[in-house]
Parts: sequence; structure tokens; C-alpha cells
Amino acid sequence: MLASYTEQIDQALTDCLAEFTTPAELYQPVQYLFEAGGKRVRPIICLLACEAGGGNPANAMSAAIAVELLHTFTLMHDDIMDRSPMRRGRPTVHVKYNENTAILSGDVMIGMAMRMLERSAELAPQPIRVIQAFTTGLIEVCEGQSMDMTFMERHDVTVDEYFTMIDKKTAKLLEMSAAIGVLIAGGSDAHLHHLTTFMREIGIAFQMQDDLLDLAGSPAFGKAPGGDLLEGKRTWMVLRMRDLCQMPSAQTGHRTLIESFFAKNGLVPDQVPAMTAALTEIGVLAEAEQKIRSITEEAFQHLYQLPASPAREALATLAHRLMSRTN
Amino acid sequence: MLASYTEQIDQALTDCLAEFTTPAELYQPVQYLFEAGGKRVRPIICLLACEAGGGNPANAMSAAIAVELLHTFTLMHDDIMDRSPMRRGRPTVHVKYNENTAILSGDVMIGMAMRMLERSAELAPQPIRVIQAFTTGLIEVCEGQSMDMTFMERHDVTVDEYFTMIDKKTAKLLEMSAAIGVLIAGGSDAHLHHLTTFMREIGIAFQMQDDLLDLAGSPAFGKAPGGDLLEGKRTWMVLRMRDLCQMPSAQTGHRTLIESFFAKNGLVPDQVPAMTAALTEIGVLAEAEQKIRSITEEAFQHLYQLPASPAREALATLAHRLMSRTN
Repeated sequence: MLASYTEQIDQALTDCLAEFTTPAELYQPVQYLFEAGGKRVRPIICLLACEAGGGNPANAMSAAIAVELLHTFTLMHDDIMDRSPMRRGRPTVHVKYNENTAILSGDVMIGMAMRMLERSAELAPQPIRVIQAFTTGLIEVCEGQSMDMTFMERHDVTVDEYFTMIDKKTAKLLEMSAAIGVLIAGGSDAHLHHLTTFMREIGIAFQMQDDLLDLAGSPAFGKAPGGDLLEGKRTWMVLRMRDLCQMPSAQTGHRTLIESFFAKNGLVPDQVPAMTAALTEIGVLAEAEQKIRSITEEAFQHLYQLPASPAREALATLAHRLMSRTN
Repeated sequence: MLASYTEQIDQALTDCLAEFTTPAELYQPVQYLFEAGGKRVRPIICLLACEAGGGNPANAMSAAIAVELLHTFTLMHDDIMDRSPMRRGRPTVHVKYNENTAILSGDVMIGMAMRMLERSAELAPQPIRVIQAFTTGLIEVCEGQSMDMTFMERHDVTVDEYFTMIDKKTAKLLEMSAAIGVLIAGGSDAHLHHLTTFMREIGIAFQMQDDLLDLAGSPAFGKAPGGDLLEGKRTWMVLRMRDLCQMPSAQTGHRTLIESFFAKNGLVPDQVPAMTAALTEIGVLAEAEQKIRSITEEAFQHLYQLPASPAREALATLAHRLMSRTN
């Protein structure tokens, strides 16, 4: 089911991109970024949520493309802001073309997304609710990115603020994809609640796990272990370690390490093994794993409030796959 | 009527901005740009179009704020792309804050605009048509900006391409503002056609006139005469002069000037008086004035297809004011 949906989504995406070709300077970078592929997680969620909500997934196909366009817009603009040189194994749009192009092609992708969304919204019992869910996603993802950027200049980010940030930056677009699917189906409020909560919690667990996996690096993608530690990224782990190191019982070595992380906005490569060891010794890694497990379990409790169906099982499979990535 | 509408719009804008405050790093730049004022032309058009279409303008107030937000988003992003240091007498957002902030605060303004638009769209007989008009505006304005940027690298821009560019970059947002107003009113297709054509043609005439006025400069705003000539901007006047200079009868001096303009992507200040004289001698200025007049007249013919009403007269006043600016 997932493989067949991915194929249909890729076809619909190709059809959509063929509608937007002139001026080439504006639309080629969009094409370029999509050519690099992607797992199409958000459009799959949208289609499955529609189906699980009792709707015809074909009605949600344009909306599925819309959520992928919105997600890809965030990648294009975030890459400028984060000065990222590579994305999906190729130069980022602002590097391959230039920054102005990446700004403007990102902007028009919001318009393309809305154009696609309208087509599915028209088939929904309450079209405006579909648009509202999309708007919420757009606003929240900008707020999340803003918080993420500001965190880099702060030493006092709280664990709560971290959760708010990943909720907005990562989880809300997954939640939005589910909400749009259910709303196109005209599913019940209970359906909407359980499916969006499921996706949102999976999104939070996924982001925490992503941060955890970064410690091991990903040699296949040329990522060194502890990349986030080198960049000074405020992950749950360093925030938790900072809090634990404020206790009188904390080891001086640990305290020195975490203070150095905040003071210099990141570690040097030589400090990474000691930091990984410290995170293990203080129990932060075990605690993170435990947190990820409990959030994931709570998420599934929401999913299993829905009546059994092939779409529900496919959503479970998708979530398990997301959570069992090892790089 | 216009003054009272402007006041109501400014109040609604203040109320809207008060809804979006956290994170401050994201929303303060939006506030900052709005504080500098603005003529609120597009929201006024939206309210008057609703009223002229037989609707209650109060229903269009949120949409009026939406069109102003969309317009202001284009200013924030265009200023980054054009490297503009000043806007409305103050440093631009990317100068006052930084480029990342200007990108992200611009992005969220699209979301804010949609949030406002939804509120008026819900009151329209066909909500999705309101959203569609907005989406068209967003897509076209990005296409227009893309064309404008590409023109700077080309010597062979045609007069037709110039008209397509200003249509998309300037006229479409005025057209959109009118369309949204009529659609909220549930006006007839004839109303929609005449009002949108009126605003679009006024937009084109306005942009041509803006290019013409640039020749005289605007000392009050610190703008030197012929700023567009110095920047190498492809206006109708230089494109027309280039075409006329290809005739065998063209004067060598004129030909040298226009070739220098394209070869060096702009003139040096010393060349501006000669260029202004050349544009007068060849008759390009007179031709431009004639074109602006005839487009404006055609626009008004569409406006006067509508039944007489205070809103129609206010739209006429607004258009006359736009066209009688002298700087």
C-alpha cells in the first residue's frame, strides 16, 4: 500500500510541476529540488488520513502534493538561513543558483501549494477548514524556525521551549498533513483529534530520535558523529545535561564540557567522544530513549482509538518505519 | 469616504498585528515595516470593490488586511533581492535586523494574510473562489519579480515582455484586491470582469507613469533624477528607444547612448541629462504619456460599465489620485 501510494504521489507531483514552467528561472529550481527525491512522508500521511477518515484518497491527492510543496518550501528557505551547502546529496538551491532565486522560488512554492490545495478543498464538506489547517501549518513552521534560530543565541533555553520548538518546526507539518486528509474525508471530530495527535506525537518522538541519532553520525551521507554538538544545536540532550550539571553532585569534567558547549556555541571535534561518554554516564541518553519510547507509545494509543482498517495499519507501518531509522 | 476607510483599515491592521506577537523575533519586523505607514491602496480597493459589488464592506475588512499583508510581504522580500537599504524613509528589514529575519518574517506574512483572508472568505457565497484569487495574486507577483530580475541580465527584452512583467508584478495585486472584494460581495461575473479589468489597467498605467516620473527624480525622498537609468532598469522608455534606434534614420548620438545603457547595465550620472533629452527628441516621452492616457481611459470605460454608486465614484477618485501623483 505504501509503495503504491508513493508511486502515485510521484506521478501527481510530476504532473503538478508540468503546470508551472514559465518563467523558467523561477520554476527550474523547484524542479531541481524535487528531482533529488524524498520519502514523501507527508503526502502519504495525507492520503492515508483521508482513507482512515472514511474518504476517497483520490480526493486528497492534490492536497497531498500541496503538503509536500509546503514542506519543500521550508527546506529551500531553511537551507538559505542555515547556510547549508548540500541537500539530498546535491548542492542546495541557493548554492546551485543564487540566494535571490532560492528566496523567490521558495515563495512561489507556497502559491503552488495553495493552488493544489484548493482542488482538494473544493471536494471537502467544509473547504475553508482545509485551508485553515494549511495556514496553521505555514504559520507554525515559520514560528518554529524562528525559535530554532533564536535558540542559537541563548544559553537559557528551557526543555519546555525545546519541545515547543520541535512541535512547531517538525511535528505540526505532520499533524497538518493528517488534519487535511481527515477534513477532505469529512471525518468525525474524534477521528480528527486522534489522527492529528498521533501524527504530532510521532513527529516529536521522531525529532528527538533524529537528535539522538546525530550522535552516531551517518558516514553513508558524509555526516560526522556529533554534528549537532559541533554546531552548538540546542537539543533535548544538551539542555537536559546542562540542567543535571547544575546539581551539586555533578562531576566537574561534565560541567566543564557543557559549559564549554554553551560558551563557544559548540564543541570542537576532539571533545565529541568525551561528550558522548558524559551523556551516557549521566544517564541522559537512556532518559532520551525512554522519553522517545513513551511518546511513541502514547501516539499509538491515539491511533488505536480509530476503527481497524488497512489505512490505519499503513499509518502504523509508516510510523514504525520513521521511528526505526538508524541513520 | 476614502479617509474614513483608511482609518478603519489602520485600526483593523493594528488589531491584526496584536494577534501575532510570539515569537517576538519573528513578528517584530512585521510590526516595524507596518509602522512606517503606507497608502493602503490595495485594502481600500478591496473594500470599495465589495461595496460596488453590492456587498457589505465590513465583510471584506479581514480580506483587506490580507491583501495589505501580501503586498507588504512582497516589499520585504523584494528589498532583500534588490539590496534596497531604505523603505518608507527607514532602513529596510534586512538592514535593520538581518537577512534571515527578513526571509522568515516575510514568509510568515503569507500565513498571516491567509489567516485573515479565511475570515472574510467564510462570509462569501463561494469561499474557495476568494482563496483562488489570492493564490493567483501570490503566484503572479512572484513570476513578475522573477521576470524583473531576469530582465537585468538581458539586452533583448521585448516591449511585450515588459508589459507582461508589470502586469504580473504590479497590476495583478490591484486586480486581486478588486476580485476578492467582488467575490466576497457575491457580485455578478460582469461586475467582477469590469472591476478587475479597471484595476489591472490602472495598475499598468500607474507603473508606466512611475517609470516616467523617475526621470524627474524625487528630491523630497532623496531620489536623484533618472535613478532607473542609473540602475539599468528595463523600462518601456529604454526598450522603445532601443527599438527606434535600430531604424536607419536614428541619430548616432542617441544610438551610442542606448547602446551604452545596455552594454554597461545603466548610465553614469553625467549621461542622464543627454538621455532625457534624447527620449524627448525621439518622441518616446510623448509616446509614453499618450500610452498612459489611453490605457487609463480604457480602464475608466470598464469602471463606468458599473451602475453609479458612491463606491464607484470613490474608486474613480482613488484611481485619479494614483495617476496624478507627481513624485
